[in-house]
Amino acid sequence: SGLVHVKNPYLDSMEEDVLYHLDLGTKTHNLPAMFGDIKFVCVGGSPNRMRAFAQFMHKELGLAGDGEDLADICAGTDRYAMYRAGPVLSISHGMGIPSISIMLHELIKLLHHAKCRDVTIIRIGTSGGLGIEAGSVVITDMAVDSSFKPRFEQVVLDDVVVRSTELDTDLTEELLACSKEIPDFPTLIGHTMCTYDFYEGQGRLDGALCSFSSEKKLEYLKRAYDAGVRNIEMESTAFAALCGLCGLKGESSLTPAL
Amino acid sequence: SGLVHVKNPYLDSMEEDVLYHLDLGTKTHNLPAMFGDIKFVCVGGSPNRMRAFAQFMHKELGLAGDGEDLADICAGTDRYAMYRAGPVLSISHGMGIPSISIMLHELIKLLHHAKCRDVTIIRIGTSGGLGIEAGSVVITDMAVDSSFKPRFEQVVLDDVVVRSTELDTDLTEELLACSKEIPDFPTLIGHTMCTYDFYEGQGRLDGALCSFSSEKKLEYLKRAYDAGVRNIEMESTAFAALCGLCGLKGESSLTPAL
Repeated sequence: SGLVHVKNPYLDSMEEDVLYHLDLGTKTHNLPAMFGDIKFVCVGGSPNRMRAFAQFMHKELGLAGDGEDLADICAGTDRYAMYRAGPVLSISHGMGIPSISIMLHELIKLLHHAKCRDVTIIRIGTSGGLGIEAGSVVITDMAVDSSFKPRFEQVVLDDVVVRSTELDTDLTEELLACSKEIPDFPTLIGHTMCTYDFYEGQGRLDGALCSFSSEKKLEYLKRAYDAGVRNIEMESTAFAALCGLCGLKGESSLTPAL
Repeated sequence: SGLVHVKNPYLDSMEEDVLYHLDLGTKTHNLPAMFGDIKFVCVGGSPNRMRAFAQFMHKELGLAGDGEDLADICAGTDRYAMYRAGPVLSISHGMGIPSISIMLHELIKLLHHAKCRDVTIIRIGTSGGLGIEAGSVVITDMAVDSSFKPRFEQVVLDDVVVRSTELDTDLTEELLACSKEIPDFPTLIGHTMCTYDFYEGQGRLDGALCSFSSEKKLEYLKRAYDAGVRNIEMESTAFAALCGLCGLKGESSLTPAL
């Protein structure tokens, strides 16, 4: 049917669903009218950057007005920012798995309540490149954890549930095909490693704590490269697991900064 | 000496230390002049709320001006927001362990570079109360994980390092004594449970995914209460572990919203 699958037996019997961190709700907002025609959702860490992206999409799509004064749909909260340009929704998710997870739970419910169909979601945040040219775009074929395994361990109450982190293969190929039309823009398909920590988790030598040697860091990053990892960030496994479970065609396509 | 301990042998030999996510650095800013007299750091999730807190402190401390136009010291980035009022620094940390960890690494280095002494750090974010009156303040004596254990598992490269999450006992008592001077403000000491997820991790029945019954949720929360947990949030174990390791007198004092 192309609808978003919410896997929660309690949800439809709830009188009201408040999407707390988006400052939206089923009683306070007409979600089908506001979002029913959304076909693409782009997410990234920084609110300013997601506003700039929505403005860019506004121009690209040739929509009326200059797009400079797009309103933040989540203006009532400073947890996340959300903008729309035609059928494209642009949302910030902050940094790290817990932060993107809260946003995705509420976004998925939003798309469900709005009865959206055939939605594609793409993460366009930044990442650190591994053995690739600076500024390259990595289209993620698989999100892996810090052991290079394609899995996301979700704690449900006090049980650990392991979820798959595979992404949509067709979308990966489609995005790669698009990239070929843009010259001078190095783009490749690779695994994306997702960590819980920016400093100690990604082998940085400049955090407040650093207990490993430069050699051990390089040895770890080399093992990651050999396992197919081409960039490192902090959200992709949760993104892939949640989108996959809820029937959202998802892709995590990123611009390495390093 | 009361100085902040940075535990990184590489740091002092670095020519420049860029605190990327704070938009500050040792070459671009005179950190001792800007921050050398800081004695208290208060951190919380929301940037707007941390600005409001700095404005409140500005008034409480009787500083010149009305404090309405405090400048965001991290204005060059939208990752975090930082304000100061006299010797008090007020910083946002976003949501979840990865987000607060990035901020704390850079804050600890900032305090180190600025040669601050005897700094007390207090987290004043929101949380969900467990079996306590709504609006109560829980002063955390111990941050525990989802198994109610006082530990923080940090992935360093691909090794898991277990860190202690004990907080400063004197500070806990001092804060409780302060609370006694404020009538009609229920305050108690208890354990704070830190989860990686807001919906499935905290037993909520209204996420996009929910695989447990209402009974299983209540059984889990009852076990948490019996283990001494009085509130639940998403940052305290990382906060306690990092502050403890770096010699910051830390406390996680929170207002339950539920």
